[in-house]
Amino acid sequence: MLAFIGGTGPEGLGLAYRFALAGEQVVIGSRSAERAQEAVAKIRAKLPEGPLHALVHGAENPQAVRMGSIVLVTVPFSGHADTLAALKDDIGDKLVIDIVVPLAFEGRRAVAVAVPEGSVAQQAQAILPNARVVGAFHNIDAHELFDSDRSLEMDVIVCADDAEAKQKVMALAEKISGVRAVDGGALANSRFPEDFTAMLLNINRIYRARTGIKIVGINRPRPG
Amino acid sequence: MLAFIGGTGPEGLGLAYRFALAGEQVVIGSRSAERAQEAVAKIRAKLPEGPLHALVHGAENPQAVRMGSIVLVTVPFSGHADTLAALKDDIGDKLVIDIVVPLAFEGRRAVAVAVPEGSVAQQAQAILPNARVVGAFHNIDAHELFDSDRSLEMDVIVCADDAEAKQKVMALAEKISGVRAVDGGALANSRFPEDFTAMLLNINRIYRARTGIKIVGINRPRPG
Repeated sequence: MLAFIGGTGPEGLGLAYRFALAGEQVVIGSRSAERAQEAVAKIRAKLPEGPLHALVHGAENPQAVRMGSIVLVTVPFSGHADTLAALKDDIGDKLVIDIVVPLAFEGRRAVAVAVPEGSVAQQAQAILPNARVVGAFHNIDAHELFDSDRSLEMDVIVCADDAEAKQKVMALAEKISGVRAVDGGALANSRFPEDFTAMLLNINRIYRARTGIKIVGINRPRPG
Repeated sequence: MLAFIGGTGPEGLGLAYRFALAGEQVVIGSRSAERAQEAVAKIRAKLPEGPLHALVHGAENPQAVRMGSIVLVTVPFSGHADTLAALKDDIGDKLVIDIVVPLAFEGRRAVAVAVPEGSVAQQAQAILPNARVVGAFHNIDAHELFDSDRSLEMDVIVCADDAEAKQKVMALAEKISGVRAVDGGALANSRFPEDFTAMLLNINRIYRARTGIKIVGINRPRPG
């Protein structure tokens, strides 16, 4: 079961929809049980009629975390540290995928805020020392995930210090149609895809597009 | 004439080679006239026999800058501020393309150094207030430029505050076979492709590859 903390926003909705479409159990967590159920209804309305609907659940954040074997963090950056600190005991030593981007705006221009720990993913690891934190999915456009059914043809850069957790998240990412997972190395490297999201938002505004990235020049699997 | 400040390193050699191949006049600048001529010989040895050889020149940095209508900065970050300050009068109000990346290494991991001005390109603009500075070409692999003849199939993100200068550099970038120029917005956005180069170097090490990026999801030209 994939548990989304703050799953009612566009990124949580979009990823939960795509994972349910791929046959994964998902639970949308929210501070409000009612808003969690509203998100469940939105996702079910997008899914084809039938058994996929039973894969989508909703709950308050702590219960959602307890239901999940993998926890995905999709809160705004402003709530990142406080939300994780409050859920620390429920999260324990679970695998945590942090998708949060340290975004701010100067006028219409998206900028990346400096994170004292080096990256949002490292901030999560500092708050959750027993968890296995992985940074991933930063550069996937939320609206492209939810509003379209197109195959995405985008890369997901996956950064982690725990090799087994990284491998699991890379395999999970590739359950989304069209997505290729790219090993981004250490958790500290999560800073790069996190910050680059601001570049993509600026390009989106200039081109009125919903962009993502592909790393070109990778012609073989990771050695060993 | 395209003038390369510090053009004897891999990025300068690679870009000068590709631009000469596209029929552009280039002058390799160096602190040493002898090393500039060595770089010229290396580039000529890569070019097909014939008239393209006459497009490639070498000179000490100040003379190279005076010969150029466009100045490309390809020095290591450690020499960036001092080199530009020393060439300020020669550069004057020319169009400057800054390609420098604020790279450092922690062990084998590439990291991005914080630049007080916000980005290397903004540092150049602060040192050269009369120049029209553009940040571009950060994510193009130097060795892929010089050691191969393959079409690159990579994007060059171009960031500038001067719309006409940006347009010129976007057109220039697309003279390199396979390259697509992407409007990256304001000069301050140059920070994102600058820093992301460290991500690509880490991916290069993991996959033993020479990577670049493509922005996916841009399906139309920039709106008017």
